[in-house]
Amino acid sequence: MKFGLFGGATAAAAASQADSERILLDKSEDSHSYGAFIDAIVEAESLGYHSIFLVEHHFTGEAQVSASMNLLTYLAAKTSTIRLGTGVVVIPWHNPVLLAEQASTVDVLSNGRFDFGVGKGYRPTEFDGFCIPIKEATERFEESMGLIKKSLSSNERFSFHSDRWNFEDIVVEPPPVQQPHPPMWLAAGRPDSLRYAADSGYSLLLDQFATFDVTLERFAIYRQAIEASGKSFDPMNVAVARGMHIIRNEEERTIAIDKRMAALNHMNQAAKSNDASYQTSMASDPDLRKAAEQGTLIGTPEEIIEDLTHLRDGGVEYILLAGAQMSPPQMRAFAKEVMPAFA
Amino acid sequence: MKFGLFGGATAAAAASQADSERILLDKSEDSHSYGAFIDAIVEAESLGYHSIFLVEHHFTGEAQVSASMNLLTYLAAKTSTIRLGTGVVVIPWHNPVLLAEQASTVDVLSNGRFDFGVGKGYRPTEFDGFCIPIKEATERFEESMGLIKKSLSSNERFSFHSDRWNFEDIVVEPPPVQQPHPPMWLAAGRPDSLRYAADSGYSLLLDQFATFDVTLERFAIYRQAIEASGKSFDPMNVAVARGMHIIRNEEERTIAIDKRMAALNHMNQAAKSNDASYQTSMASDPDLRKAAEQGTLIGTPEEIIEDLTHLRDGGVEYILLAGAQMSPPQMRAFAKEVMPAFA
Repeated sequence: MKFGLFGGATAAAAASQADSERILLDKSEDSHSYGAFIDAIVEAESLGYHSIFLVEHHFTGEAQVSASMNLLTYLAAKTSTIRLGTGVVVIPWHNPVLLAEQASTVDVLSNGRFDFGVGKGYRPTEFDGFCIPIKEATERFEESMGLIKKSLSSNERFSFHSDRWNFEDIVVEPPPVQQPHPPMWLAAGRPDSLRYAADSGYSLLLDQFATFDVTLERFAIYRQAIEASGKSFDPMNVAVARGMHIIRNEEERTIAIDKRMAALNHMNQAAKSNDASYQTSMASDPDLRKAAEQGTLIGTPEEIIEDLTHLRDGGVEYILLAGAQMSPPQMRAFAKEVMPAFA
Repeated sequence: MKFGLFGGATAAAAASQADSERILLDKSEDSHSYGAFIDAIVEAESLGYHSIFLVEHHFTGEAQVSASMNLLTYLAAKTSTIRLGTGVVVIPWHNPVLLAEQASTVDVLSNGRFDFGVGKGYRPTEFDGFCIPIKEATERFEESMGLIKKSLSSNERFSFHSDRWNFEDIVVEPPPVQQPHPPMWLAAGRPDSLRYAADSGYSLLLDQFATFDVTLERFAIYRQAIEASGKSFDPMNVAVARGMHIIRNEEERTIAIDKRMAALNHMNQAAKSNDASYQTSMASDPDLRKAAEQGTLIGTPEEIIEDLTHLRDGGVEYILLAGAQMSPPQMRAFAKEVMPAFA
């Protein structure tokens, strides 16, 4: 198995390990919070972590990372082997050609280490901020991704015209190092979305919120769709995000589970739409305790190894620890006490 | 006087010094070309250069830097004191809020070293590529800059609605390190644009194409407008770009002037519009020899010191050497043989 990281930046060492997406940021020390995150990723590389997938959010008032590809570019300069991913860029909000230029530039500057994680978005408040109807998310995503793939892979000039985007006789530069384009990772959960990801050539990001069992079901649907199309399945093309916290006693377990439940609740609220026509798979089981206990790597190193073995038995080979970079001691302990069992 | 750099990246050591904006890029070695540029900037910092202003262009087919703020972010990680500027971001092509997020992120990651150079654009082919009418450039620029300033400086949520851009109840994060926002530099040349820059609180970028005399006229108009408004004038708020080539004999002088004339011709062609209603100040004097001989720092160190003294006598204190990073020997010679005269 290989292990990467998933999440954002934080200034606060005491931040909840489970609340991986929030930057708990003292505005007077914002550069420090990015600094702590950067230091953690540099250390993660030396500890043997395979990748970082960086979250992007907008207008949260919680100072979450907005310009994720800029922070990844900075990390490209500070690291040499760890893969650098977006987790994810919400495509409907971006100009697809300017985004392709950024993606290619990050790929060049990281010498081919860029993983282009993409999604159609799930938070109604962010769509409201951009004044983009969330019900158009899928249509916008598909249109833009077609244009982005063309932008990244075409060495010839081309034109594109639609109701939303118009480009005439363009060639997108620089060309990426990874040809024809960096791997594209799609965040998906529903069966139709999983099959779409497989059929459209995406690698798969499975979220940290679903239980182990639901995650393995999703994994199997994607694998079957890949194999049904006659392609060979590479388990490194599926990254499973998981909350993680190594505990040493039952008191720590109780605290970690409680914090995880609070984080799941926060997440479920953010993902909730007033528009019944828009459903996301990015919400946890409504039974928060079940979601926390049966979906996270909270336990002793031995218990975590047992959970990971269960996932591996289902075919999973690639795990992204959500929020571990927010607690370097946890990140180190996992590298020392869990990773060797899967070397 | 202080000296910075202006231009882009190149793979080719033999590239014309005068052709500062072009990246002469072997597509099989694109990462190397960025690498050579990055190495040059790191060295420039140690040689005492004050800043780099990085050019942005799109769809040129010449592999010019497109995602300039990503390359600046990389440089932020590789340097510690040199100021990092865009030279310039063409505002009408960008989503103003996403751009503000990027600008603020670069400012945070560089610990307050970001200079936000902005312009309304001048190349018709690029506007055509984006399918944005060049005649809307000024209107789009002004609308977007208002929104960008608000995005960078407001800690409170706000909304913005126009025919082009709509944002509802947003707050742009992270807040920049430089408060209320990074310095904004406007590329301008015509008298009304120079007065607009002064009246609107912009620092001023003066292009490398105008002759010394025209440049000093423009400098004076901006200074007078600043002083007329009752503000005190700081000469470090005006950066004068100049082509530079130190020559050691008359043969080198002839070659350097010829190359400069060719580069000016290339630039003038790119700036030419079929739309007579759109006039740019970014074209050189039509007499290319005059433009090359009376507008560039081509000469022996002594001659260059003389030209710079002429500029300084007119009030200029801040020079950006265009394309010097493309020739590290030139960059070093200037630092050693010219800069000490103005220390």
